[in-house]
Order: sequence, then structure tokens, then C-alpha cells
Amino acid sequence: MGSLLKSLDLPDDLKALDPDRLKQLAREIRHYIIKIVSDNGGHLAPNLGVVELTLALHSTFNSPRDKIIWDVGHQTYAHKLVTGRLDSFTSIRRYGGLSGFPKLTESQHDSFGTGHSSTSVSAALGLAKARDLLGERDRVVAVIGDGALTGGMAFEALNNAGHLKTDLLVVLNDNKMSINTNVGSLPAYLGRLRTDPKYSRIKAELESFFKQIPVLGKRMVDSAERLKRSLKYLLVPGMLFEELGFTYLGPVDGHNIIAMKDVFWRAARIKGPVLVHVLTEKGKGYAYAERAPVRFHGIGPFNMNDGRTLSSREAPTYTEVFSNTIVSLARQNKKIVAITAAMATGTGLDQFASLFPERFFDVGIAEQHGITFAAALATRGFQPVVAIYSTFLQRGYDQLIHDICLQNLPVVLAVDRAGIVGEDGETHQGQFDLSYLRLIPNLAVMAPMDEQELQNMLYTALEQPRGPVAIRYPRGQGEGVQLAEPASLPWERGQLLRQGQDLLIIAAGTTAGPALKAARRLAEAGVDTAVINPRFIKPLDEELIVNWARKCRAVLTVEENVLAGGFGSSVIELLHSRECTIPVRRLGLEDRFIEQGPRGKMLSRCRLDSAGIYRTALDMIKKLKKVKGGAAVERIWAR
Amino acid sequence: MGSLLKSLDLPDDLKALDPDRLKQLAREIRHYIIKIVSDNGGHLAPNLGVVELTLALHSTFNSPRDKIIWDVGHQTYAHKLVTGRLDSFTSIRRYGGLSGFPKLTESQHDSFGTGHSSTSVSAALGLAKARDLLGERDRVVAVIGDGALTGGMAFEALNNAGHLKTDLLVVLNDNKMSINTNVGSLPAYLGRLRTDPKYSRIKAELESFFKQIPVLGKRMVDSAERLKRSLKYLLVPGMLFEELGFTYLGPVDGHNIIAMKDVFWRAARIKGPVLVHVLTEKGKGYAYAERAPVRFHGIGPFNMNDGRTLSSREAPTYTEVFSNTIVSLARQNKKIVAITAAMATGTGLDQFASLFPERFFDVGIAEQHGITFAAALATRGFQPVVAIYSTFLQRGYDQLIHDICLQNLPVVLAVDRAGIVGEDGETHQGQFDLSYLRLIPNLAVMAPMDEQELQNMLYTALEQPRGPVAIRYPRGQGEGVQLAEPASLPWERGQLLRQGQDLLIIAAGTTAGPALKAARRLAEAGVDTAVINPRFIKPLDEELIVNWARKCRAVLTVEENVLAGGFGSSVIELLHSRECTIPVRRLGLEDRFIEQGPRGKMLSRCRLDSAGIYRTALDMIKKLKKVKGGAAVERIWAR
Repeated sequence: MGSLLKSLDLPDDLKALDPDRLKQLAREIRHYIIKIVSDNGGHLAPNLGVVELTLALHSTFNSPRDKIIWDVGHQTYAHKLVTGRLDSFTSIRRYGGLSGFPKLTESQHDSFGTGHSSTSVSAALGLAKARDLLGERDRVVAVIGDGALTGGMAFEALNNAGHLKTDLLVVLNDNKMSINTNVGSLPAYLGRLRTDPKYSRIKAELESFFKQIPVLGKRMVDSAERLKRSLKYLLVPGMLFEELGFTYLGPVDGHNIIAMKDVFWRAARIKGPVLVHVLTEKGKGYAYAERAPVRFHGIGPFNMNDGRTLSSREAPTYTEVFSNTIVSLARQNKKIVAITAAMATGTGLDQFASLFPERFFDVGIAEQHGITFAAALATRGFQPVVAIYSTFLQRGYDQLIHDICLQNLPVVLAVDRAGIVGEDGETHQGQFDLSYLRLIPNLAVMAPMDEQELQNMLYTALEQPRGPVAIRYPRGQGEGVQLAEPASLPWERGQLLRQGQDLLIIAAGTTAGPALKAARRLAEAGVDTAVINPRFIKPLDEELIVNWARKCRAVLTVEENVLAGGFGSSVIELLHSRECTIPVRRLGLEDRFIEQGPRGKMLSRCRLDSAGIYRTALDMIKKLKKVKGGAAVERIWAR
Repeated sequence: MGSLLKSLDLPDDLKALDPDRLKQLAREIRHYIIKIVSDNGGHLAPNLGVVELTLALHSTFNSPRDKIIWDVGHQTYAHKLVTGRLDSFTSIRRYGGLSGFPKLTESQHDSFGTGHSSTSVSAALGLAKARDLLGERDRVVAVIGDGALTGGMAFEALNNAGHLKTDLLVVLNDNKMSINTNVGSLPAYLGRLRTDPKYSRIKAELESFFKQIPVLGKRMVDSAERLKRSLKYLLVPGMLFEELGFTYLGPVDGHNIIAMKDVFWRAARIKGPVLVHVLTEKGKGYAYAERAPVRFHGIGPFNMNDGRTLSSREAPTYTEVFSNTIVSLARQNKKIVAITAAMATGTGLDQFASLFPERFFDVGIAEQHGITFAAALATRGFQPVVAIYSTFLQRGYDQLIHDICLQNLPVVLAVDRAGIVGEDGETHQGQFDLSYLRLIPNLAVMAPMDEQELQNMLYTALEQPRGPVAIRYPRGQGEGVQLAEPASLPWERGQLLRQGQDLLIIAAGTTAGPALKAARRLAEAGVDTAVINPRFIKPLDEELIVNWARKCRAVLTVEENVLAGGFGSSVIELLHSRECTIPVRRLGLEDRFIEQGPRGKMLSRCRLDSAGIYRTALDMIKKLKKVKGGAAVERIWAR
């Protein structure tokens, strides 16, 4: 931690700092962020990009009275450092520590929690209207990246803001990319604003032209005046934003604090919504991150001195297995096309993109559009694979129901980061998908127990056009099984992993492995335990489950998903519909947003590791033995 | 049905028709639409607005080889009439009849099903890329209204289309309104394109100016030339679309078939994405609809001659009760603000809007933005009420989870059109909300059994800021109960409607009334039936339900929602977690998209009326009596 950073009372002291001290502070903050992220992992490149912007904002505005909303929120490390979280910063992204994102409950300087993209202008507009209704005068600032701006929600908010005309400052943090290279015509437009001197050139040309005209008759003068007035309207740069009702200022150098402060002051004096276009560089100030901003976007612990990642992995990640499998399937099957919403690297589709650029579509941060786009491709005989994180699939929920499933189109959803995601915490958990997917008619939902099964499920979903299929798998490395060629699985069939007569454990997805381990320990403890890997969350393999439930005396379901309406819920629905009245306990995520922490630790805390499954099973059995009265229950555990 | 309409082989014969015959055909189609909609109800005003546009499209392009995608799809009546569905048109929106929307399974001329807004450009772009990959040459056309264009998803698609640069025609059907008056800065921009002669005037002025300059030196000439080239870039109308990578043509009179054909031909010769701006009038050609396009947007059967609605209602609708209650609560409580996504009339917020314009926000067709906007207002102490249809809430699902519920903000969702919606059919059913809402932590979910309870629930949700609350209620008229003042309900408590010892029926929302009726008949048949109105779908009144389940011998749950993960599912989750092994049958919507048909008829077909509940209960009891073996079950129905 640098000496200036330590000595100041922030953010108040910022206003009195001279330019040199501000620069020094930026250097210290940058260095400290690199150090802590190299220990804890985190979003490095986005944070390095906005150090000066953060200082410019906090030295111009008065947080928390003035509200600053950070879109996505993974660029708030400097913001946290200057708003009272210097001492706790070493805990960032750790269990019980600071969040990697702004959070209402963490600080009064975090005016609105973010995590998903493109929400900031909506939130800022809501805060601005609240201010108006309360008769207050605070300033509201949304900081949004050029990538996030391609999200439709941001456009909805700009459109509404231009209409409401209230005071609002939108800072467009333009680093020429979202996580991967940006796509879309809007980024191209921003590129023209940035690099094309057309706007300023035209203005200069016009002025020089009018000056040069030697002799003007009266009609000529009138005509020239009229023309000048008309043209003024057209000669504003950032016309697209102007047309949406914003005053556009910029572009301004996002690493020049003084220049930004100056523009923010000007912006603050303008009535109505203003957009300030700021140019920043992702990874700024750390050579490794500047050269590889995608790799350093979100990164695990690394060596500060050479930029090398520290983690040593024994097994490939599920994402890597998906990436390799989809490429090998696509070599054979030319109907396979792949779609991502700006997450080519994160989802592993980057490999597909480089091998089959014609069949690859990065639609921008636009899950809604991407899903309907995929549906349309499917109507013409293609087999689209939409690779998407569980938490972001929530963005395209209506399109999944209305465009894919209602029309029963053969689109495959590769739902990555399902279940506990770890350090990103509440905003990014994939804790709901089994529940919100299984209620949709026509949709088949699968969950692999290991990486070989992920391969097989992809193969099975794509070997022929079926209806819509979702395959959900977790973040991080697989079980380390030896990988064979992908093979076909029997459709709608689960797998009995182990026979038993006392307890039946039905463990969805990657909980099946730990369940099998737990079953072995249970057998040692005298509980003869059967284990089913259901493979299909929907439709269930009804015969397999009901037959084994009838053979056993109690059922334990396990899933890495909320219990409400989840996999276990579907099992008890089935058992009831088949008049199978057997005690069922369901193990899964409780009805709350799961906090950040290492994936393994969090799974263990949620009893979703083999020890937790073992304890839960034993506890269930003990309880059942104790229950008085109720012939059924007594009979069940009479052994 | 007109004589020309009857005599033609459509759409093929369209190409040979002279302008007069095209006009005659438009007249006949318009008259026939008015006649049928006056019988069946339907979307009148949007359909009357696009008769000429439809003829122009079908006489220019070759459907089904060329693909026409109709955004929202409620304007496809003329399209259906000219694409082989003339004879079946009298069945439109009836049970078993033609859909009021385009449908893949209904006709090869319906290239993509629509129903929800703003999907057409995504679908068209998908079809265009499929065409490219297949090496085919068909044309793809999306027809999108100016209202639908405010939906962020449409912007995501425009952004992507401008980037992909493939041939695609977007017809902007600009009728200066969505369903209600359009809001947002984009509509204002369209207004300038329509009415402001600036663009064309500037062009004319420039040309005349350059012509007038009498003597030009060499430098002057160069400078003028350079200037002209530069200005050319700026002198394109529809710059906003041009900036997004589209060639803009228009505006063109949307009731002039020949003019439109001409523009469409020009558009078809241009490479890359083209946007044709067409001006139409909603309700065109039917005086009553022209004067009141909002009332005639979607309407029940009416008298053709005077435009008066035929239905005679005995009770106010749930929407009307919501409308009155929210207004009366807002008079007392100045913290209540109301938000709609372009459905002020449909949701009943129009009354609130006229009384409290400062506290009312129509955000455009922008559910995502509206929900986060509401969340932000809540952080400053307001109590936002978002009135939204169940089916459209799917659009804001991520925002509901991520912005409202994760932050535990006191936003009230008034979820209208929950359950069976009737004639709008599959795309608009509110059949999923109980399932997809109850899985979200922090969210309370209520369902009133009648209109008095709707009042009470609104009162209860708003009497103090609580966490997020959803109240879901159906389309159509209430039970006709005498309305008293809204009163407070005990939080998280259900209501025992009737005692009994044999069967416990737990009937959610408006199924409680029919359940009570069924219970009376069951009592007559010798089955002593208790009935619970749960009021809270989440959290459940656990004690009430478990206690009565223990007193009875079987449980029947009833809900107007899919069974998968629904209310009944939550009841069996509860009973299992409390070791209450009692047979439970769940009555609700099956795992399929429910087709169109009158709400009452469809409820009856789904066994959700009192007769259906009665039959299901009896069937359950008979089956239970018959089951051999299994002490528990024998004991249960030994009586």
C-alpha cells in the first residue's frame, strides 16, 4: 500500500490534491490493486483501466450524497479503495470479505448493487427520478462500458432518460472492447467518434469555407446564415446520443484526471441527460495486462513479476471439455452453429470461433437477441448451440420460453457456471437454473456427473435434431476421468450407479460422484445405499426412479441448485403421482442468495460434498428410526 | 367476404393486380377484418393499419420462399387472409381455430412465431444468416412497429445486423404509438424524421447555396468540394439507423401500395441491411377505431355499426379492482410510485397516470429497464408498484432476481393476466409465474381468491415497506363479491375456508372459490372436505397446512399454473420436510403450452373449475381406496 494512499482521508481529501499528487495516488492505487489481485484473483484489466476515472469522479462529485453507479461493477476496486475500504481490501473476493462488486449492504458509497451488465443507466435514472420527487439536488452518475452499452437494457434506459429529460450523467467508459473484442455496429460507431476526425474536420472546413467566400450578395448572406443554422444541428459529434436526447461531450482522455474533471464540471452545469465519452485502456499501467487484456479481464492468482498464473490444475475444466467436444462434433456435423453473448473465451467457444468463423456468432452482450437468433437458425435446419452462463441465461428467459421452447426448436443450451461459482458471489451464482428450466414445456434438461458424460450429453443432444435441450455443468475443473470418444446416451434414461436396499440417493449432475463416495461410507456404517445418476433432470427416468424407490425405504435427492422447485422437488412430484409414499429428504441450496467463497468450501458448507451427503443421510436415517406412530414410517425403517 | 378477395388465388395473383384492383382488395380485406373481429374480438386497430403494407409486401416478395416476420404478430390478419387462410378466418382466436398470431405450425407463410414484442429483427437476422450459410437467395423481411422498436432486444438485433452486414429488410411500421401513446426519445426522433423537413431542407439549401456562389477561386473550389463530400455523410436522413449500419429509406406513405412497392424494390437492390420507414395509421378505414385506437387495439366483440362493445359484465375485472385500489392507496401514501412497460391501459394504471402523473412512469416496451428502474426508486424510500402481465414478466426475470430480490427491495409486482388468458393463446398464457417466482429468495408471492382479497393484498404489501412482493391475479372479471375497504391481512398466513376430516383441498388464488363449491358437493357425496386458501404461495403458512394435512387423510392441491415446480410442488416439499407422508394429488396445468380458447372453457378443460376439482377429488379417493398393500395408504382411506 503506498504512503499517500495510506495517509489520506478519502474520498474527502481528493478535492484538495494537486495534479501531481493525484497522479501519484493513481500510481499507488494501481500498484496496490495489482498486488492484491495477484494474491486473490479478480478482475484486473477493467480495474486498472478506470483508476484515473475513479479519482476524477470522486474528486468532482460528493459521494455518497451524489450517487455513482458502476455498470457490471467489476471495475470498482479503486472506488472501494477511496471510499473507506482500504483496510479490508486484502479480503476482496474471499469468503466473508469485500465483494468484487458494489453492494448496497457493504458501503453507503455503493448506491446500487451491480454484477450483470447494462443495468446502470436504469438504476441511475431511477435514482435521479427519486431525487426529483424528493426535491433534492444530488447528482447521479452511471459509468457504463462500451461493451455493456450493446445490451438492449441500456438502450431502453437511454431511450427513457432522453424522454424524461432529468439531470443525469452517463459516463461512457470506452475501452474498445467488452471482455472479448467488441462486436456490433454501435462499437463501430464509437470507433468513428474516437478515431475519425470527420466531425471536427467538417466543422473546421465549414468555418474556413464561410470565411473565404469573398463577396456575398444579400441573398447569399441569408442563405449562408440559414445553412449555418441548419448545419449546426448536424455538426454535433455523438449525434446518435444527441438523437436519443443526450448532450454528448467528448471524447476525453480517460487517463488524464484533470481533463476529465474539467468535462465533468461542464457536464454538471448542463440541464438534462449528458453523456461523457471517456477513452480508457484496459489493463493500463501493467504491461502484461495491457498486452493481454482478455486474459487479465478476470484472472486467478498470478505472479506479479512475470504475469504467469499460479494455479496448477490436475484436470481440464468443464468449459475446456465443452470447448473441445463442440469443435470435434462440429467437424462432422456442418449443421452445428455456435452463439455466444460476448463470452467467447469464458464459455470456451473461442476455439470454435477460430476454426469455424462462418458458423460462429458473437452477438454482443445481448442474451435476448442471441437466443431468438438461435431459434431462427434452427427453423432452417441448423443445430444452434448457445453457450451461456447459468446466471446470464436469466436474461434470455422469455426468449427461451417464447421463441425456442414454444416452437419446440432444436437448440442446445450449454449452460456453464451452473451451481456455485465461487468468488464472484451472489450476483453470479448459477443456483436457479434447474428450477426455472424444468418448468418449461418441451425442454429437456440434462446434467453430467463428470466430463465424459458432458461429452456424451453434447453428442446425444446433437446426434440428431431433437427439441430444445439444456445441458448444465459447473465452473472449474472436472473429476479428472480418462476421456474417451463422445458416445450416445439412451434418451431420457438415468443410470443406476450402485444397488442398495435401505436408502436411495438420487444425485443430480456433479453431485453424483460425491454421493457414490458417501454411499460407500454409508455401507460401512450398515446402510445399504443405492445411487442413481438421473442424467435427465427433465424428463425424469420415471421407471428407474420409482422402481428403486420402491425397493428402498427412504430417498435422498442431491442437487447443486435451490431446493424450491428444483430437482428433488421433481422427484417428489413423480413419487406422489405414482402413489409412492416414501420419506424423501432433499439436499440442495437453501432459499437464499449464496455468498462468495471458494467453490469447494461453499459446496462443503452447503453439505454438497461427500461428507455432507453422508452426514445428511445418517441424520435422516436416525430421525426416521425415532419417529413415533405412523405405520408407514415405522415399517420403513424397521430393519 | 368481398368478391375480389374470394376470386383470387393468393398470394400469387397479387403481382398481376393493377393499382385499382389492389385498392379494391384492400377495401374488401379491411371490411372483412372488421366484420370478423366484431364477432370474435381481436386486435383490430393494428390490423387495419397494415392492410396496404401487407399487400405491398406480398406483391413484392415471394412468400414462403421469402420470409416475412411480423413483430408481436397481432397485425397479421391481412397476411393470413392472403396466404391461404381465407376460409378458416372466421375461426380466428376461437378454440381450435386460427391463431391471432403467426405460428410456425399454422402455415408455411408464417416463417417465425411471434407474440411478444421486439423479437422480429433477431428472428429475421437468424433467418438471413441461415440463408447465407445455405447459399440460398431468399429475402428476409422484419416488420416492426415504432413501439416495439423501443424494446432493447430490437436494438440488440439492429446492432448485430449492422455488424453482420448481410441482406435484410426491416420495415419500420410507424403509427406513432405502441398500444398507448409511445414514450421515449426514439419515438421523438422518429417524429422528427416524419414531420421535420430539416433533412430534406438542408439538402436543398446546400445545393442552392453552392449554385449561388458567383465566383470561386481555385482554393474555394477545392474547399467547396471537400466540404460537399464531408457533408454528404451528414445529410442522410435516418442517421441514427445509418449509424447502426442500415441504409435508411423513407418515410413512405403506408397506405399507398404502389409507393411502398417501389421502395421495397429499391430496398431489395441494396446490399446489406436496409430500413424502410413506413407511416401508417392505426385503425385506418374504420372511423371508430381511427378515433380511439387504444380502445380498438385489442377488443372483445362489438357492434360494427356503432363501435360499441357487446359484452355485458356483471362484476368488475381484477384489473379494474387493481386500478381503483392502487389509486386509493396512493392518495394516502405518497411513497407509492407506479411503473408500466407500455401497458398503462391494459394493467389499469391509466387511472393512476392521470391522477398522479409525477409518480407514474411508462418506460416504453422495456420490462428489463422498468424493473431495475423500480428497484432504484425503492432504494430511496419509494414503494414502486410494477404492474405487468405474467407473460411479460418473463422479460424482466433477471432484473427481478438480480436487482430487486438480491437487494431485497420493497417493490410490489402486480402480476396481471396470470394463469389462462384465453383467446391470445400460447404466447400470452400466464402459466408459469408461480413456479418461476417462488424459487427466488426474499420474494413473497401472493394470490387472491377474489377481488376483495386482491384489495387486501395490495393494502398489506404497501402498508409498510417490506421486501419484494408479487401479487398474481387472472384476466377477466372477478367473483362479484361486495367490495369493502381494503384491509390488512396477517403476513404469511393462509385462511381455512372450511373444516373437514377426510380430504384437504389447498386451492391457490382464484381456484379457492371453485374448490369450496366442490367441497360442498363432496360433503354431499360423503367426503368430509377441508379447504384452505393459502393466500401466500411463498412463504407458505406451514403450520396451517401441516396441521390440517395431519387431520385429513389425503391432500389435493389446486393451482392455475404449471404443475412442474408450482404451488402444489411447494406443498409436497413442505409436507416431506415435516415428515408428513400423506398422499397428495396436484391439480394444475399440464406440462405443455396451453392453446387458445375462452378462459372459462379452458379452465374447465384443465379441470380447474369446481366440476373438475370435484371429479379429481373423487377419482383420487376411489383410487386410494383401491390401493392394495402399503399400511399407510390403507390406513388413510379406511373410513
